[in-house]
Parts: sequence; structure tokens; C-alpha cells
Amino acid sequence: MKKVVVIGGVAAGLKSAAKVRREDPTAQITVLERGSLISYGACGMPYYVGGLIAEVDEFVKTPAGSIRNPGFFKNVKDIDVRTKTLVTEINREAKTVAAKNLETGEEMQLPYDNLVIATGASPVRPPLPGIELKGIHQFWHPDDAVAVRSGIDKGQIKNAVVIGAGLVGMEMAEAFKTRGVNVTVVEMQDQMFPAFLDTEIAASVTKFTTENSINVLLGEKVERFTGDDRVKEVVTDKRVIPADIVILSIGVRPNVELAKAAGLAIGKTGAIAVNEYMQTSDPDIYAGGDCVENTNIISGKKVFAPMGSTANKHGRIIGENIVGKRTEFRGVLNTVVVKVLHLNVGKTGITEREAQVLGLPYVTAMVAGPDKPHYMPGSKPITIKLIVDPESRKLLGAQAFGEGEVAKRIDVLAAALTMGATIDDLFDMDLAYAPPYSSPIDNVAVAANAVMNKLSGKFKGISALSAKEKMEQGQAVFLDVRSPEEYNQIRIADCRGTQNIPLGQLRNRLDEFNKEDEIVAFCKISLRGYEAACILEGAGFKDVKVIEGGIVSWPFACEK
Amino acid sequence: MKKVVVIGGVAAGLKSAAKVRREDPTAQITVLERGSLISYGACGMPYYVGGLIAEVDEFVKTPAGSIRNPGFFKNVKDIDVRTKTLVTEINREAKTVAAKNLETGEEMQLPYDNLVIATGASPVRPPLPGIELKGIHQFWHPDDAVAVRSGIDKGQIKNAVVIGAGLVGMEMAEAFKTRGVNVTVVEMQDQMFPAFLDTEIAASVTKFTTENSINVLLGEKVERFTGDDRVKEVVTDKRVIPADIVILSIGVRPNVELAKAAGLAIGKTGAIAVNEYMQTSDPDIYAGGDCVENTNIISGKKVFAPMGSTANKHGRIIGENIVGKRTEFRGVLNTVVVKVLHLNVGKTGITEREAQVLGLPYVTAMVAGPDKPHYMPGSKPITIKLIVDPESRKLLGAQAFGEGEVAKRIDVLAAALTMGATIDDLFDMDLAYAPPYSSPIDNVAVAANAVMNKLSGKFKGISALSAKEKMEQGQAVFLDVRSPEEYNQIRIADCRGTQNIPLGQLRNRLDEFNKEDEIVAFCKISLRGYEAACILEGAGFKDVKVIEGGIVSWPFACEK
Ligand SMILES: Cc1cc2nc3c(=O)[nH]c(=O)nc-3n(C[C@H](O)[C@H](O)[C@H](O)COP(=O)(O)OP(=O)(O)OC[C@H]3O[C@@H](n4cnc5c(N)ncnc54)[C@H](O)[C@@H]3O)c2cc1C
Ligand SMILES: Cc1cc2nc3c(=O)[nH]c(=O)nc-3n(C[C@H](O)[C@H](O)[C@H](O)COP(=O)(O)OP(=O)(O)OC[C@H]3O[C@@H](n4cnc5c(N)ncnc54)[C@H](O)[C@@H]3O)c2cc1C
Ligand SMILES: CC(C)(COP(=O)(O)OP(=O)(O)OC[C@H]1O[C@@H](n2cnc3c(N)ncnc32)[C@H](O)[C@@H]1OP(=O)(O)O)[C@@H](O)C(=O)NCCC(=O)NCCS
Ligand SMILES: CC(C)(COP(=O)(O)OP(=O)(O)OC[C@H]1O[C@@H](n2cnc3c(N)ncnc32)[C@H](O)[C@@H]1OP(=O)(O)O)[C@@H](O)C(=O)NCCC(=O)NCCS
Ligand SMILES: [Ca+2]
Ligand SMILES: [Ca+2]
Repeated sequence: MKKVVVIGGVAAGLKSAAKVRREDPTAQITVLERGSLISYGACGMPYYVGGLIAEVDEFVKTPAGSIRNPGFFKNVKDIDVRTKTLVTEINREAKTVAAKNLETGEEMQLPYDNLVIATGASPVRPPLPGIELKGIHQFWHPDDAVAVRSGIDKGQIKNAVVIGAGLVGMEMAEAFKTRGVNVTVVEMQDQMFPAFLDTEIAASVTKFTTENSINVLLGEKVERFTGDDRVKEVVTDKRVIPADIVILSIGVRPNVELAKAAGLAIGKTGAIAVNEYMQTSDPDIYAGGDCVENTNIISGKKVFAPMGSTANKHGRIIGENIVGKRTEFRGVLNTVVVKVLHLNVGKTGITEREAQVLGLPYVTAMVAGPDKPHYMPGSKPITIKLIVDPESRKLLGAQAFGEGEVAKRIDVLAAALTMGATIDDLFDMDLAYAPPYSSPIDNVAVAANAVMNKLSGKFKGISALSAKEKMEQGQAVFLDVRSPEEYNQIRIADCRGTQNIPLGQLRNRLDEFNKEDEIVAFCKISLRGYEAACILEGAGFKDVKVIEGGIVSWPFACEK
Repeated sequence: MKKVVVIGGVAAGLKSAAKVRREDPTAQITVLERGSLISYGACGMPYYVGGLIAEVDEFVKTPAGSIRNPGFFKNVKDIDVRTKTLVTEINREAKTVAAKNLETGEEMQLPYDNLVIATGASPVRPPLPGIELKGIHQFWHPDDAVAVRSGIDKGQIKNAVVIGAGLVGMEMAEAFKTRGVNVTVVEMQDQMFPAFLDTEIAASVTKFTTENSINVLLGEKVERFTGDDRVKEVVTDKRVIPADIVILSIGVRPNVELAKAAGLAIGKTGAIAVNEYMQTSDPDIYAGGDCVENTNIISGKKVFAPMGSTANKHGRIIGENIVGKRTEFRGVLNTVVVKVLHLNVGKTGITEREAQVLGLPYVTAMVAGPDKPHYMPGSKPITIKLIVDPESRKLLGAQAFGEGEVAKRIDVLAAALTMGATIDDLFDMDLAYAPPYSSPIDNVAVAANAVMNKLSGKFKGISALSAKEKMEQGQAVFLDVRSPEEYNQIRIADCRGTQNIPLGQLRNRLDEFNKEDEIVAFCKISLRGYEAACILEGAGFKDVKVIEGGIVSWPFACEK
């Protein structure tokens, strides 16, 4: 009868315990959790605060409505879950863990044949003056969610400040906004989602949030908090912001103290090092979830990527390996998806910035387009950027944003990346087409075509950032090939040197330009911009470029 | 100056013409189309009839609102499109085509360096008595859509009969239903979507349509139509159905007459044979779209798969090859997706039936589950079935249906299939997880896990069809492990031998069964059913099975 002890009772821990039980009916399985709550879905908390979910209990319920408490795990899975039980030491020689009941003070020693470390991560708490004030929340545990929501429900919260424009931060910004609370996000770095978006895409997302009354302050550092008992203001290096509540979401660190004290190998990322079987440097001890490091399968680098999805995968694989299988975990793509109000944003694989840091050769292309045929109600634009290895033509990474169906394309690209797909594979893929869902040539295939066109020299796309620079230099002709009606509705602001010639007239108006002119063509999504460039190049123009993503992806101001 | 002639002015034809122009500014490109309309998106027509789209013109508009008529192609793409121009002969020796202006009767000979045959397909018109009556539509051209819709708009249509429960047929059934018209679908085969769904899934879809007042008659043959001038009744081998309008959607046949007459190779499927470069047996003549046959990359077999998505891919590849590239088209997965009211249905790769016909070894698993966490508003169930090679563990095909996000999963599975993914790859894929979009372990990964569990002997799933048989035999115990509340709400009808024991009580009530009993466990989605089976097997029960997909995928009657 195998003895399995698990430290940590949320995703990775309980998933591994559950899998062991299904595979081995006789194992003796004990899960030790220092908190009083187990098996909760923290990821849903922003939507509870935002009012979409009535009760915080939903996060510990099965779809069928059972509460996943220790009694549930006993009855359903014959797993002994002990809450309020802090593990204080791992004794690898004796193969025991020492733990303490935090209520009774009782100390215990539990023998194990296999140990699972699933201690998760904890939010970073910066040692700023005033950090101890009430109303400053880390938002990592359901207790935080209850506190934040009840404050809003009671009408006590007018102004919220979110520190850190990452996933949790922006989801909370949405939640506040949805509840009618003024919200300001303060981010030290000079862009939103610094961990996973390239500059121009982050800028487009920031433009969207700003237009939708989520105030985002970039490149700004919080210095302290003021207030008597409760927080009243957040003081940054640039201003003072009134705050009835503060969400601290500047990142998390893996909980590795126990592992470190036991002499287990810790990786460069600061998280526990594990092999492909999720074993630590002690083969009897497995670790998974937010406390371990992962391998990014594109870069081959170790990364700290604390995700609920990955934690559950780890758990299942650990469970299988404990019962004697040899299941490998291949690694992660650092995939993320996030909803900010009605904007969808996602990323998989590596970013352009990462490709630069890694010194990899790469080419990128960014395309915009409707997510299904324009004639279908609910058709919305999305923008996709691909990062591709120009030699092998293999996909390295992708980012996407827009009001349309982004998550589907990110998942397709994640599947493609996992399998080492080239841009040629992306075009060939027989993706499902019917008008309620997509266009005959899916946005993913169009993005692949744009990369092909760049590689063959046909598509000389430039990013919005470099187009903006050219505008400021004032030498290029900016050729907007939309119709006059579209032009009157909305235009790129301060666009020196713009000429508006509808695509259909261009072939007859080539004499309005010189063949030596630097011409930067664009339209709403830059499909017509690209066609214009083909026409101009076909007519012998020497220096024609296209603004990738067009006006719908333009991260700077437009005028109406 | 290369002369390119294209026969057929819709998807494949105009896409190849457009691509040639972008790649070769000097080519002389002529497109010959016998109809008066070009470049239309026929796929959207059911939604026009259904009232979602105001004007049939939308199907020839670009997203920016330009009408894609010959003038558009002249101005924007410098392509000479001649409508009402029927090509009557291809002379391969002379490298000319003979054509005739259907208005003026003028005949012409056009020389080509490269010819593109993109003549599409035509709906099958069965020679039944009464077929010539007014009100019987084939629904392949926008003219049909206008006629059908105007009949509905004028209130002339109370009863519609759709013949053929395929893609177009069921989309039209939805359209009629949406407009308040009584609709009956008559299908000769004994299941809906006979071309691409396995029996049990087709049965679930039929259950849904029936519950939503689309009357579907299976295994029933239309024998004739009656009426004076206009159709009044459809007479089948079983009954007489009143009909103010009839949609004939029993399939299409490739338009190969010209190719055949010119001595070009025709494949076994009856469509034009092409190589991987989309060349016909005459290397100067390319063909693409609905008139050619494709290779299914999973079965390796030639298939006739007329799709708008594929037609556009063909067109682009033909364009590239005409200008001297050597771009290959890899083939298709026979992917489809279709919306029937609020149900989404999709398929990619091969079905179980096809695997049988091909004599391939295979294992299947079907799982149901919410498409995102149950606590998120809008979470809806979906069911996924995978067909997998048990040796290589490679995916062979997938089907899915449900009110939730089916299209995303089909696209992920299509991407995986294209790349030869195994079920282990499917589990590892770092798909994007956030609560508005999906669950920590995506439905695709759960489906992969179920196949793994079957292969390892842990999951003894049976299909609803064989569960139903067992019910009728009356020997097995049917163990419903849902809560009594769930049981009272809805149950499998006529389920002899049902016992309702909630999962949480099972471990303490094992003595209610004999270890030799045949026990068939299930629940709403069969997750708890699977857990129950693990418990029973762990306790030494010898013959435990699980109904795959549970009650939400049960295709037979339920009682409330
Ligand atoms: C607001 C929010 C939104 C999120 N959104 C997403 C999302 O959209 N997508 C996504 O993939 N992920 C998301 N996450 C992350 C996800 O919740 C985590 O990745 C996941 O919970 C990690 O699971 P885990 O089991 O590894 O660790 P945890 O959930 O952190 O659990 C570890 C447990 O171990 C216990 N523990 C630690 N040390 C000890 C000890 N010494 N003794 C006993 N017990 C101990 C802790 O008390 C804790 O309960 C989100 C998280 C939050 C907070
Ligand atoms: C209602 C409906 C719904 C559909 N839904 C979908 C869907 O959801 N997804 C999907 O992928 N596909 C769908 N399709 C199929 C899709 O529309 C076709 O696959 C696509 O149009 C094929 O394009 P094509 O260019 O090959 O052929 P076609 O569109 O058929 O065009 C061929 C053209 O060639 C012309 N032609 C033929 N012979 C001659 C000649 N001798 N001389 C001159 N001209 C000639 C014809 O007049 C015709 O205009 C749907 C079709 C319909 C009708
Ligand atoms: C729920 C939890 C306890 C894991 O327990 P679990 O019993 O493995 O639960 P799951 O629902 O994931 O899986 C149950 C099993 O049923 C299988 N299954 C699921 N749906 C099925 C279906 N429709 N038919 C057949 N089998 C099915 C799964 O594959 C799995 O079996 P396997 O691992 O042996 O292959 C753990 O993941 C947890 O505590 N989660 C909540 C917290 C969390 O995930 N937080 C982070 C994100 S917010
Ligand atoms: C529209 C049609 C004429 C094809 O013409 P086309 O000029 O190739 O049009 P597309 O929009 O497909 O593509 C335009 C080009 O812009 C590129 N493009 C698209 N969006 C872009 C963007 N945002 N940025 C840069 N390039 C972009 C495409 O890759 C393509 O270039 P490439 O083929 O050189 O790579 C033809 O497909 C047609 O008639 N379709 C309507 C009918 C139909 O498809 N019916 C069946 C389905 S209902
Ligand atoms: Ca694996
Ligand atoms: Ca290819």
C-alpha cells in the first residue's frame, strides 16, 4: 500500500491526488493544506467581483453542484485532505514530512513513499510605505475576492487603483469598470502586459482600454500609500491618485522554501527544477503547478509560467508517474488569453522581443481582418501577428487582439506551434469554414500568407511604430486607399503627407506620384493597402511600403 | 506577356486571377463566366433567407462596401471579366478556348498560355415527376435566395420541405424555422448529415432539431411533387407533406464536361484529377475549386469535397504556380462546421464509419463537458468524439456538437490532424485558458485523456447505441450516479434496471451490487460515471462500463 503525501490542496496537488486514486485504489493519499479552503478556482475571482458570478462558493463547486471540501474528497475519492495544516519540513532521509495543525497546534510526522510538492506561488508584496493599510489587496485567495466585492456591494468604493497591468490587474480593472468604479492602472514598465505582448500590440490594447475609460498610467512607479487606517491615496513618482481600494498585482513568486530547505534543486527562474516526468532532484519527490519551472518548447529555455491550466496538466502527469507510468510533460508555450471588457487578447510561443533577446533570426507580419464574413451580424475585427523563422519557415510565436474571436485563433496557433508547423502548414490547414464562424480563408491563413509575401519580397510591411516615425520625419507619402466616405469618418491623426486615393482609382492616378517617392500605403486593415503596393510596384515604383494591420490596429490617435 | 484564361468567375477562378495579377503585373488575364453575377459568397445565402442579412448584394461586396463586379476587377485588379460568356470548348492543341456571348451570340476564340478551369459544381436535380413545378429550388445561386426570401417576405410560405439533411439543407431548415415557416426535412438515408457524422452523433443532432421544431424524416424517399403550376405537396414513400416551397439539397456534382471533352483526366470521384500543384493531366491547364477532386490527408484517398474554403486555397496556389512558383497543396481533412439554430456541429478528419470502411484499426472516445467553467455565464455543454489509431496513438478524426464553442475545438483538432498529432500531443498542447474562454483542462485535452484511459484499459466506455441495446436486453444494472435532485429533473427514458446512487455514497453502498454484475455507470456527462467505474473496479467489480458522453449526449428519449 503506497503512501502518497501531497503538500498544497488546490490545482496541482489535488489533481495529482485524484489521478493517483483513479489509478491505484489501494494507495493511502494524504493532502496537507495550510489554508482552510481547498480546490478553488481562483481564476474566476475577477468575474465574481465584476458581478457575473453570485457566490464565491461557485469556485469550489463541481459543475453538478457538490462542494469540493475534505468530505467530498473523502467520500468520492477516498483522499484524506487536512486543511489548516502547515507543512514545516521535508525529511528526505526518513522520507517523512513534518506538519502542524494551525488550529490545535498539534504536530505530526507523515511517512511517504512519494511526495508531491504543489505549494503554488504567492503574490509579490512590495515593502512600500503604507502597504499595511486596510484596503490594499493582493487578490490571490477567495478571501480577497469576498473583501473586494463586499466593499463594492456596500457602495464604499468610488475609486480603485490597480498596480500592475498584467493578467490579474487588467481583469480586475475590467471588474471595477463593470461595477461602475473609477479605475486607474499603474504600471512601472512602459507598456501594458509587458510579460507577453510586443510594444505595438500592447499600445493598441492600451488605446482600447483608455477609450473605454480604464485609465492606464505607464512607466509610472508607485512610491507609497497614504491613509489613516484604510488606504486613501496612492502616491506615484508622478502624481497622487485617490483610492478607496488598491489591488496589488505585480506578479507572483513560487513557494519554494520547503523544497530549498530540503536541498532540492531550484532552477534559475527561482522555481523548483523538475525533469520531464515532473520529478525534482529527488526522484521520489514530484513537484508541479505554480511552484515549479517549465520549459518553453519554442525557446528551449526554462521559464516561470504559473498557470492553472499547466498546474492541472502537471498534476495528472505526476499522478500517472507515481503509479508507475513514465509520462512526459513536453513543456509550455507561455500561452495566455485575457478579456479586457469586450477586447480579447492572446499570445502563444515567443514574442518578437523574445526572439531578439534570444538572438533568433525572425520575420514578423501583422494582419487585421473581420473574424467572419463582414455580412454576418456580429462580425468583428481581429489582428494577428506572427513571428516566424525565415529559414525553416516555422512559426515561433503569435499574438492577437480584437473584439472578434481571438481565443480560437490563439488555440489553433498553439496547436500548430506544439507540432512545429510552418507557415505553409498554416495555410494548408483545413480549418472549419461556415459564415457563422469564420471566413473562407481564415485569419490565421491570411497571416501566414502575409509572412509568405514578406519572405518572397512582395509585401513590404512596416509596423505602426515605424510608420509613426516616418510620419514625424515627414518625407514619405502616406497613401490612404480607402473610399472618401471612409476617409471622412476616421483618419490617422497628424498624418503629414496623406493622400486619399480610393484603390479603384489608383491605376489611373499613378502620375500623381514620382516613381522614386517613398510611399506608405494603408487602408482600414491594409488589404487594400497591400493591393495598392502591388499596383505601384507593378508600375515601377521603387519604394513602397504598407502599414501592417491598417487603421483598425493603429495604436496612436485617430481623428474623426 | 503571359496570357491567362480562367473559366468560372466565383471563388477558385477569381482568386487565381487575383493572385496572378499581384504576382505578375503584366499578365493578360481574362475570366469567362457564363452567368451574370460573379464573385459571390453563396455560403451566406441561408442567412439572407433567415433574415440576418438585409440585401443579397452583401454577397458581392467587399468588407469596405465595393461591389465586386467586372468594373471592380478591371479597376482594382486589371482583370478582364466577361460575364454571360459560356466557354464551349477547350482546344489543347491550339491552346485556345472557344466561348460564346450568351446575350449577343457572338463567338470568340481566346488563346492562353495557362488555362484555369474553375467551373464549380452544380446541384443534383433528380428526375422526379413534378420536378418542373414552380417553387422547387436548388439553392445554389443568389437568384434562388432572392426567390425564396421574397416568397417568405410576402407571407406566401407556410410550409417548407427541404430534401436532403446535409449542410445546405439543414442551414435552410434553420432559415425557414427562424422566419416562422413550418419546415420538414426529408432524408433518404437513415441519419442526418450522412456524409460526415457517425450514427450516434447524428442521432443527438436529430434529437436537438426535433426538440426545436424542425421535423426531420429519416430513411424516407421523395417520390414526386404535386401541384398545378406551383408545388403543393411532396409525396414520399411514406406520406404526403404539404409544401409551398421545396429546397432540393441532395448534393452537387462537379462541372467536368469541358475538361472531359478536352481529354483531361477525370478522377474516380468524377471530378477533375489534379496533382499537388493543381495541374490537370495537361500541365498548362490548372483546375481548382468544386470541379476538382482532393486528397484526404488522413485516409490518403481521393475525395470530392466542394468547399468555399478549399476553392480559395486552390485559387491562390494556382496563381502562384502560374507565375512560376512550385507551391503544393497538401490536401483536405473534409472539415465541416455547421450551425443548426443554437447547436454547433463540426467534423474533421475521418469518421468511425470511414475508419471501418478503410479497414483501419481505431479506438474512439466521446466526452461531454462544459465549454468553459460552469460558473461563467454562458457556459454550455459540448461533446467531442475522437477517432484514434491505437498503435501510433495518432488522431484520425474528430466530431463535436453542442450549444457551446464547438468550432474552436474543431479548428484545434484540424490543426493537430494536419500535423499528425497524437493524443499525447493533444493533452500537452498549451491551449489558452482563462474563464471567459475555456476550462483549465480544455475539452480537447479531456477527450485525449479519455482515449488514453481507454487504451490503458481504465475507461471502458460504450456508446449510447450499445447502452441502448443493453437496456433492451435488460441484463445490466444502469447506475446513475447523479444527485437525487438531478435524477428527478431528467432521466433516461425506459431505462430498465436503473439505480440512482449519488457518487459520494457509492463507496459505502457497494454491497448493493454483486461483483459479477454487469454495471453500466453514467451521469450528466459521464465524468462521475467514470469515477464510479474507477471505484467499482478498485473494489473488485469485474464488468463495469460507462456510457460515453452521459445524458447530455444521449440521443434517445429522456423523461422529466
Ligand atoms: C485572480 C487570478 C486569476 C487567474 N487567472 C488565471 C487564468 O486565467 N488562467 C490560468 O491558467 N491561471 C490563472 N491563474 C493562476 C492559477 O490560479 C494558478 O496557476 C493555480 O491556482 C496554481 O495552482 P497550484 O496548485 O500550483 O497552486 P496554488 O493554487 O497556489 O495552491 C498551492 C496551495 O499550497 C498551499 N501551501 C503552500 N505552502 C504550503 C505548506 N508549507 N503547507 C501546506 N500548504 C501549503 C497554499 O496555501 C495553496 O493553497 C489566476 C490566479 C488568480 C489569483
Ligand atoms: C447555400 C450554400 C452554402 C454553402 N456553405 C458553405 C460553407 O459553409 N462552407 C464552405 O466551405 N462552402 C460552402 N458552400 C460551397 C461554396 O460556395 C463553393 O464551394 C464555392 O462556391 C466553390 O467555388 P468555385 O469557384 O469552385 O465554384 P462555383 O462557385 O460553383 O463557381 C463556378 C462558376 O463557373 C461557371 N461556369 C461553369 N461552367 C462554365 C462554362 N462552361 N463557361 C463559363 N462559366 C462556367 C459557373 O457559372 C459558376 O459561376 C456553400 C454553397 C452554397 C450554395
Ligand atoms: C478538480 C480537481 C480536484 C481534480 O480532480 P479530478 O478528479 O482529476 O477532476 P477532473 O474533472 O479534472 O477529471 C476527472 C477525470 O474524469 C475524466 N473525464 C472528464 N470528463 C469526462 C467525460 N465526460 N467522460 C469521461 N471521462 C471524463 C478526466 O479525464 C479525468 O480522468 P483522468 O485524469 O483519469 O483522465 C483539481 O483539478 C482541482 O482542485 N481543481 C480546482 C482548482 C483549479 O483547477 N484551479 C486552477 C484553475 S482556476
Ligand atoms: C475575393 C476574390 C476575388 C479573391 O480576390 P483576392 O484579391 O485574392 O482577395 P483576398 O481578400 O482573398 O486576398 C487579398 C490579398 O490580401 C492579402 N491580405 C488580406 N488581408 C490582409 C491584411 N490585413 N494585410 C495584408 N495583406 C492582407 C491576402 O493574403 C491576399 O494576398 P495574397 O493572396 O497575395 O497573399 C475571390 O476569393 C472571390 O471572388 N471570393 C468571393 C466568393 C467566394 O469566396 N465564395 C466561396 C465562399 S462563400
Ligand atoms: Ca505527454
Ligand atoms: Ca502548401
